[in-house]
Amino acid sequence: MATAPTAHVPATSPSADGGLTAAELTDRHQATLDQALEAITTRAYWSPHPEHPKAYGENGTQSAEEGQAAFQALLGRPFELDQPGTDELVGGEVSPYGIELGVTYPHPDIDVLLPAMRSGMRGWREAGPRLRALVCLEILRRINARTHEFAHAVMHTSGQAFVMALQAGGPHAQDRGLEAVAYAYQEQTRVPETADWSKPQGKRDPLRLTKEFTAVPRGVALMIGCNTFPTWNGFPGLFASLATGNPVLVKPHPRAVLPLALTVRIAREVLAEAGFEPNLVALAAERPGEGLAKTLAVRPEIRIIDYTGSTSFGDWLETTARQAQVYTEKAGVNTVVIESAADYRGMLSNLAFSLSLYSGQMCTTPQNLLIPRDGIDTDQGHRTFDEVTADLAAAVSKLLGDDARAAGLLGAIVNPDVKARLDAAAELGEVVLPSREVAHPDFPDAVVRTPVMVRLDAAKSEEDPAYLEECFGPVSFAVAVDSAADAVELLRRTVREKGAMTVAAWTTNAEVEQAVEEVCLEECAQLSLNLTGGVFVNQTAAFSDFHGSGGNPAANAALCDAAFVANRFRTVEVRREA
Amino acid sequence: MATAPTAHVPATSPSADGGLTAAELTDRHQATLDQALEAITTRAYWSPHPEHPKAYGENGTQSAEEGQAAFQALLGRPFELDQPGTDELVGGEVSPYGIELGVTYPHPDIDVLLPAMRSGMRGWREAGPRLRALVCLEILRRINARTHEFAHAVMHTSGQAFVMALQAGGPHAQDRGLEAVAYAYQEQTRVPETADWSKPQGKRDPLRLTKEFTAVPRGVALMIGCNTFPTWNGFPGLFASLATGNPVLVKPHPRAVLPLALTVRIAREVLAEAGFEPNLVALAAERPGEGLAKTLAVRPEIRIIDYTGSTSFGDWLETTARQAQVYTEKAGVNTVVIESAADYRGMLSNLAFSLSLYSGQMCTTPQNLLIPRDGIDTDQGHRTFDEVTADLAAAVSKLLGDDARAAGLLGAIVNPDVKARLDAAAELGEVVLPSREVAHPDFPDAVVRTPVMVRLDAAKSEEDPAYLEECFGPVSFAVAVDSAADAVELLRRTVREKGAMTVAAWTTNAEVEQAVEEVCLEECAQLSLNLTGGVFVNQTAAFSDFHGSGGNPAANAALCDAAFVANRFRTVEVRREA
Repeated sequence: MATAPTAHVPATSPSADGGLTAAELTDRHQATLDQALEAITTRAYWSPHPEHPKAYGENGTQSAEEGQAAFQALLGRPFELDQPGTDELVGGEVSPYGIELGVTYPHPDIDVLLPAMRSGMRGWREAGPRLRALVCLEILRRINARTHEFAHAVMHTSGQAFVMALQAGGPHAQDRGLEAVAYAYQEQTRVPETADWSKPQGKRDPLRLTKEFTAVPRGVALMIGCNTFPTWNGFPGLFASLATGNPVLVKPHPRAVLPLALTVRIAREVLAEAGFEPNLVALAAERPGEGLAKTLAVRPEIRIIDYTGSTSFGDWLETTARQAQVYTEKAGVNTVVIESAADYRGMLSNLAFSLSLYSGQMCTTPQNLLIPRDGIDTDQGHRTFDEVTADLAAAVSKLLGDDARAAGLLGAIVNPDVKARLDAAAELGEVVLPSREVAHPDFPDAVVRTPVMVRLDAAKSEEDPAYLEECFGPVSFAVAVDSAADAVELLRRTVREKGAMTVAAWTTNAEVEQAVEEVCLEECAQLSLNLTGGVFVNQTAAFSDFHGSGGNPAANAALCDAAFVANRFRTVEVRREA
Repeated sequence: MATAPTAHVPATSPSADGGLTAAELTDRHQATLDQALEAITTRAYWSPHPEHPKAYGENGTQSAEEGQAAFQALLGRPFELDQPGTDELVGGEVSPYGIELGVTYPHPDIDVLLPAMRSGMRGWREAGPRLRALVCLEILRRINARTHEFAHAVMHTSGQAFVMALQAGGPHAQDRGLEAVAYAYQEQTRVPETADWSKPQGKRDPLRLTKEFTAVPRGVALMIGCNTFPTWNGFPGLFASLATGNPVLVKPHPRAVLPLALTVRIAREVLAEAGFEPNLVALAAERPGEGLAKTLAVRPEIRIIDYTGSTSFGDWLETTARQAQVYTEKAGVNTVVIESAADYRGMLSNLAFSLSLYSGQMCTTPQNLLIPRDGIDTDQGHRTFDEVTADLAAAVSKLLGDDARAAGLLGAIVNPDVKARLDAAAELGEVVLPSREVAHPDFPDAVVRTPVMVRLDAAKSEEDPAYLEECFGPVSFAVAVDSAADAVELLRRTVREKGAMTVAAWTTNAEVEQAVEEVCLEECAQLSLNLTGGVFVNQTAAFSDFHGSGGNPAANAALCDAAFVANRFRTVEVRREA
């Protein structure tokens, strides 16, 4: 199989007979699977993947140095992946930190690759839900063991700062993958494998049947990765499809191939060791400007699509790829209602962090801050609108005052489009917090910018107000509203028309709190209330928080619930007379 | 509320305070709900709804005479339904047995009706999954109590014979409705109502959040009924949507309004008594040729659609009604492989019954009988192709030899389209079993016909062979194939290209059996093997059998599984610091 160096992961060496057995996989992973099943039921905190960088380096996991060396060894050469149907090598990733990665990847001849992927379906189906789950957990374990290597790969494709790339691109993404496996396993095992059916017929003998139920896959799943969170947004769909028996073709964003190429290679390695067709997971890297996703999405073999990205392409997929189940996460306009605060300083620091983290390049970052024009009541006394925006601007500036610390929080601007939006935002209204350039201590060519905040007014009756479009990146709008009621109605309109991955509110007023909650329940948005500490509206935890709701225009699916997995497989019944 | 006579259902009288309380509903229905939840887990036989006509008449249920009288009292007058937004009365149902029903129904002004339906959503959402389920069970209980009245209503709209109309249109439909309620309840309660989340932070205090999770509805659900099984095919979607918190607008087939109008009236009555907005369930009857479903399907308020009917309209809905979750059951070409038989006579009688029941007007009736041209081996010796078709024709003729008995099995031809297809079928090939007219003992104007069987040959390489189109009605094709392997490949092609609600096979050959099973697993079709007794391929039992698979072109959903309910609601999370 793959000729990639696996020396960093000694614990993955094959068993004596050269393969991973079901018994070994059970020993390694059954307890973890059981705990994951318990976690999605209680939704209490749980994770088997440590998030501290120093937690790695033992028990067969890469140390920081090993991870960095492994990443360096990948650069400037073809990425080795022995999948069939390769017609050329493609690649051109440039790190947002200014480094050309120089890695090339196989470009697929899909008429060769897709049949090869399908050839593994029967064996994978016959493995059954439990063995499929255990194989997925082994894939995740090997990914976890290489968390440091993934951290560099995610950092140099997404622009995330190293610690965030390690955590969000590593353990948190692994959690989301494991969560999807747990849901998939649970869903496939809700129907028994067999049933005895005996229907009374009065004095006559009962009618008796034996029934067998088998979870069957739909076909090849296409996972279309995104630039900013290649693993975190990619793993749920990838593992949900694979665990339900479907081959998965991974089409990464052309700027963020490496983390998913590593994922594919590890998956193929584990599948082969466990006796399955490695082509059940394959990579589809593309030529510049090729638009491969569009070609793949309408192939009849593709029966499932997972996509994170623009609303326009997401809508196109939903409308056009009618042969497939399509799961999309698209754009939204995340909204914050600031009506009053019991802990004003806590609110400011919490919100300042949310606006700054990864330069606001998260689908969950707040964009619109709705603030009554008459100001708000707080534990620090009344604050006028201008005082609130000034205080928030000061909180952001303080948080990002030191360049090195700022760079560690902001990361780099992921691509020129975001930079252009940031530059243009200052023209949209009165700038209450200007963006500034930050010098990165290690990467002089990195484009690092602090967020901009622009004051707008909801009272202006514009047809297409700027704040009702997603402005993805380090841009927020402080929107003056007439009243709390006005804020609530604008929140409703925003979620209904534009969608939202997240909503936050700060209020000490029970009526306002209830009104915001009611809007979120009616318009189907996830709400964080009065956060002042170390949990932020833009972060969700696997096994407990839902990412998106699937019920407003920002996404047609939530990570992760039963609906995310239940239609990736079907149940076939065979019945016979007993 | 409804001014309909409810004297037949004494047990439904309101409690002393004029309303149904949660406690009363719990007393009445919690045990049934629990049993239903158990049944969908074991998939053993279970039903709380007796199917023998004589089981009714006690415990507040209508006797046969009461049911008939109640049905007669409905005829020739406006159907009383006090829903808002009625702009005229419409109707023109003519029984396939030759009686004009003369019932008229309110035609909706949907700009008035839809907002009235939405106005009940908050209260219904706040009731929560358990109370919603119990209210649904009360609706089903009252429907069950009027099983005899429904039997006549189903008979005189679908053309089913009385006993079948009573069973399939009554208890079996009620079972399917209850099954949907059980799935909906189970699905909504898999996420806890609240969770305490505490994430360790090393030496610092843990991060702590309290989280509330609420199942929220999507919006108004549209249930588009069909002509042949208004209740059986209608109840699953209706109850799945209602139990998950959505208002349901019932748009019956214009030839089969009465059973669903009764359903709507009972639902409204129960909702009002339980303190909910009765407009959560409403009827949308249409003018002749109006095409109301097409108008309703694209209204932004409509967020869920359930449809049973033609492939063309089902495909249109799936493609066009992008604002809604669309669940369709469309056409398919149900295929039977006859390779060999261990009990030849049992096979013949079983298959003869399946071909005859309700004149083959079931979406599950076999159409293509694939038989090797060299004949088959049986416990009665080798049988040539011609002997097999002749023996099967004889079995059908014997089953339907007596007109009165035949009428009781065949029912009436549901509409002129089916009659036209039957007449045209004889031109498609050699008729091996001619259709004959049957005189109905009670209804001289009823159109009753025995099934036709036509011999075709798969070896003819036609571009569009007749047997690869659904020929809905009492028409089957005995298709000569070269071999068992040829049959298996034609089965695969048929299911893949045309879909199938059911597949059956008779074989004593383990390899052939395995090949047929593999095709069904790969192409996602439900398989019945070697049936010779009192269970038939065209019948499925709620709580145990899946109706359709949702994985081939005949239907995009199965009745009933988690996928059928999981996307009718969404989960909204509200989180706060603990």
